[in-house]
Amino acid sequence: MKRHYSKELGALREMVLRMGGLVERMTHRAVQALVERKIEMLAEVKAMETQVNRLHVDIDEACIQIIALRQPTAADLRFITAAMKINTDLERIGDQAINITESADFLLTVPPVKPLIDIPRMADIAKEMLRDSLDAFVNGNELLAYETIRKDDQVDQLKDQVFRELLTYMMSDAGTIERSLALVLVSRHLERIADHATNICEDVIFMTKGKDIRHQDLLP
Amino acid sequence: MKRHYSKELGALREMVLRMGGLVERMTHRAVQALVERKIEMLAEVKAMETQVNRLHVDIDEACIQIIALRQPTAADLRFITAAMKINTDLERIGDQAINITESADFLLTVPPVKPLIDIPRMADIAKEMLRDSLDAFVNGNELLAYETIRKDDQVDQLKDQVFRELLTYMMSDAGTIERSLALVLVSRHLERIADHATNICEDVIFMTKGKDIRHQDLLP
Repeated sequence: MKRHYSKELGALREMVLRMGGLVERMTHRAVQALVERKIEMLAEVKAMETQVNRLHVDIDEACIQIIALRQPTAADLRFITAAMKINTDLERIGDQAINITESADFLLTVPPVKPLIDIPRMADIAKEMLRDSLDAFVNGNELLAYETIRKDDQVDQLKDQVFRELLTYMMSDAGTIERSLALVLVSRHLERIADHATNICEDVIFMTKGKDIRHQDLLP
Repeated sequence: MKRHYSKELGALREMVLRMGGLVERMTHRAVQALVERKIEMLAEVKAMETQVNRLHVDIDEACIQIIALRQPTAADLRFITAAMKINTDLERIGDQAINITESADFLLTVPPVKPLIDIPRMADIAKEMLRDSLDAFVNGNELLAYETIRKDDQVDQLKDQVFRELLTYMMSDAGTIERSLALVLVSRHLERIADHATNICEDVIFMTKGKDIRHQDLLP
């Protein structure tokens, strides 16, 4: 009956997934560059930002077009408004990946502080949260969204741990201050990526249930 | 003709302004507590967050209701989607104000590093940007939105300057590391508040013109 319209929703879903894949890859490569100390990898991350920015504009445009032309209601409208919100979070994840490359620009020109402590692990959890949040979005999987939100605490704990360890380095050797600070910032960028994945999950729950769980602390 | 519907749009505008006023006040009081070293002021900021969270949910709800029931098009639809996006940014400004209080919780239990360098000035510009971005929203004032976006560079410059100065303190006296780090974080929170005000301005320009200037670097 409304075949053309489902096709538009499908295209929107595809764009969101493509953007999600891009910002996940940006995050992955930015941290990999840092771990493997490959400065040439950073340019690749920066180049991906252009595609992300293009998709950011296109997704908003597509959402407004569908709302204006198709006047969707109920579940479809919630899907489209969720896509608009997720779009914002994905773009900001891309920004955070770029921020990581900027810290890496500096870090890869100086000797390493030490192994990167728990930063690679933070990155792994944040990427997994992002992937799962988008899976939850396309499959309307509310349970997965709840599970993903719970992982945010792990990231926060790792961030605090990284901070304490780096503080110890800085205090015992002033020569490490600048490098340690750059790593503190990297861990904060990763924490924010996890926060954005959490936002996406909250939007998914709102979309699937029409229920707004934000600010309620009532995870099952 | 569509009087009831204009009333709904007016109510939505009011809610956005109320939320904007709250997060501006939160920012103001958090920095004031830091400057005047009044730890009791921090509780007030934290208490305001509950109201902000309530409005965050209510505004999204109102937007979806109006879209679903009134099926607005063109300018009205752009106004409503702008309100949804601005809502997200305002809520995150509230989060940043809370983050400032958390740094202040620590900073107000230790002796001051020195005067707060350019942090109060950063806060003044960020608050002004927020106020102007909301003025631009309610008046559809595209020019004011462009002017406000331009101020973001000043905030970024101040943030870099604050960072360099604090780095100098830390390097010359390891005893100031922890306090200086807390101030670095405060300046980053203020920078993010200015970023959110910039996002709001971009939404206003999209709303007034139906033009998406994000990622284009073509400010007049």
